[in-house]
Amino acid sequence: NKLRAAILIISETASQDLSTDKCGPILQDVFRDDGGDQWEVAETKIVPDSILDIQSAIKQWSDGEDALNLIVTSGGTGFAVKDQTPEAVSPLIEKHAPGLVHGMLAASLAVTPFALMSRPIAGVRNKTLILTLPGSPKGAKENLQSVLKLLPHACVQAAGADSRAIHVGG
Amino acid sequence: NKLRAAILIISETASQDLSTDKCGPILQDVFRDDGGDQWEVAETKIVPDSILDIQSAIKQWSDGEDALNLIVTSGGTGFAVKDQTPEAVSPLIEKHAPGLVHGMLAASLAVTPFALMSRPIAGVRNKTLILTLPGSPKGAKENLQSVLKLLPHACVQAAGADSRAIHVGG
Amino acid sequence: NKLRAAILIISETASQDLSTDKCGPILQDVFRDDGGDQWEVAETKIVPDSILDIQSAIKQWSDGEDALNLIVTSGGTGFAVKDQTPEAVSPLIEKHAPGLVHGMLAASLAVTPFALMSRPIAGVRNKTLILTLPGSPKGAKENLQSVLKLLPHACVQAAGADSRAIHVGG
Ligand code: NA
Repeated sequence: NKLRAAILIISETASQDLSTDKCGPILQDVFRDDGGDQWEVAETKIVPDSILDIQSAIKQWSDGEDALNLIVTSGGTGFAVKDQTPEAVSPLIEKHAPGLVHGMLAASLAVTPFALMSRPIAGVRNKTLILTLPGSPKGAKENLQSVLKLLPHACVQAAGADSRAIHVGG
Repeated sequence: NKLRAAILIISETASQDLSTDKCGPILQDVFRDDGGDQWEVAETKIVPDSILDIQSAIKQWSDGEDALNLIVTSGGTGFAVKDQTPEAVSPLIEKHAPGLVHGMLAASLAVTPFALMSRPIAGVRNKTLILTLPGSPKGAKENLQSVLKLLPHACVQAAGADSRAIHVGG
Repeated sequence: NKLRAAILIISETASQDLSTDKCGPILQDVFRDDGGDQWEVAETKIVPDSILDIQSAIKQWSDGEDALNLIVTSGGTGFAVKDQTPEAVSPLIEKHAPGLVHGMLAASLAVTPFALMSRPIAGVRNKTLILTLPGSPKGAKENLQSVLKLLPHACVQAAGADSRAIHVGG
């Protein structure tokens, strides 16, 4: 009964040559090594920097009866014209989670001020929690590690289980 | 001439049995003990996790000629399906206050990483400042304490007084 | 080939008597002294706390072929009725930059808790990065200094240059 996660890599280059993706395997490792045996990575996908492709993958993983517990994206959160992951994800979010955004930014800021150049979004769609991570393997890894221990509780709550006993944040 | 505050407890349980509410009395204590003799808690109310009930109470306290200076809510800021306080409050906010959100999250984060699981909103409607606090008594207390000393200045500004002499943030 | 910045002072008083503006010269100094010889302040303007005047200046500087790389505003970010800079700027932003907001608030918070009373916005319109700074000379200076070293990278990305080699945040 593990929590089921998806990794969505958003990269023009990797979408054309899957072998160039370094983020996917690193995020897989984070779930395995730092996830306390609570996570199964059930889906991975690589798409280009296309709003429609990003939204299509997220809807597929969050809208069905068998929705996943967590979607993490990597890439497209910078300032370049092509970077539009936050703009693709934000309209799909029903409940924004500024605390998780704060946690990712505060943790990254402790490592490097350049972390402030990411433009993260976090929140819930239906019963699925969605986080946007940066595109650099190092940044993506550190961002996910910074909040990973909080995510099971958030995902269990979002999935509709009775979590009153362990209710902390709300 | 004290500033007038309202406490809105948002809880299914407490709305059915008022005696189960622990947050209201604790927040009353914070205003009295940490408020520098500047606050009067003029209104308190307990409502269930209902968007309409939440919005109705806030509008009643912020829309009249005799609007209150501050409304703090407690509860409904988590990730569960029932948690929809931010979604109720956000559309009522005319001026968002990301600095106060940052302050509450940074202060909470220094106590426990689980504070990141709250989804706070802060801002002004008409002349009333509104803050959403977590539902746990400990979290609500710490969040309010973390920004309480700033609130008189913000409330006096929002109420329309000429505060140029003490103008700091804007 | 310096990056081109504009300074927009938003102040009822200074718009009537330009000689009372203290923020403009201070921000000029920050670009010159702390900007690593990368910035030219190409435009400065003083407008009252008017949404239309604020939006008109920003559109003029960000919408043409010869758009500037950066616009910093100062003033109108507090809680008073007249303070509506974030409300003027936010609808013009196409890509919000919560990381830069976080950086400005975290840096200010380290100096004084009153910094939390600012309501900053940061993001990109077309190819121009826009930041709203507080109206106090000290606050405006510290906020700009806290993120200035990150801005060239963000501005180069936003302007459409191929910055893959130096890509950090996205
Ligand atoms: Na923040």
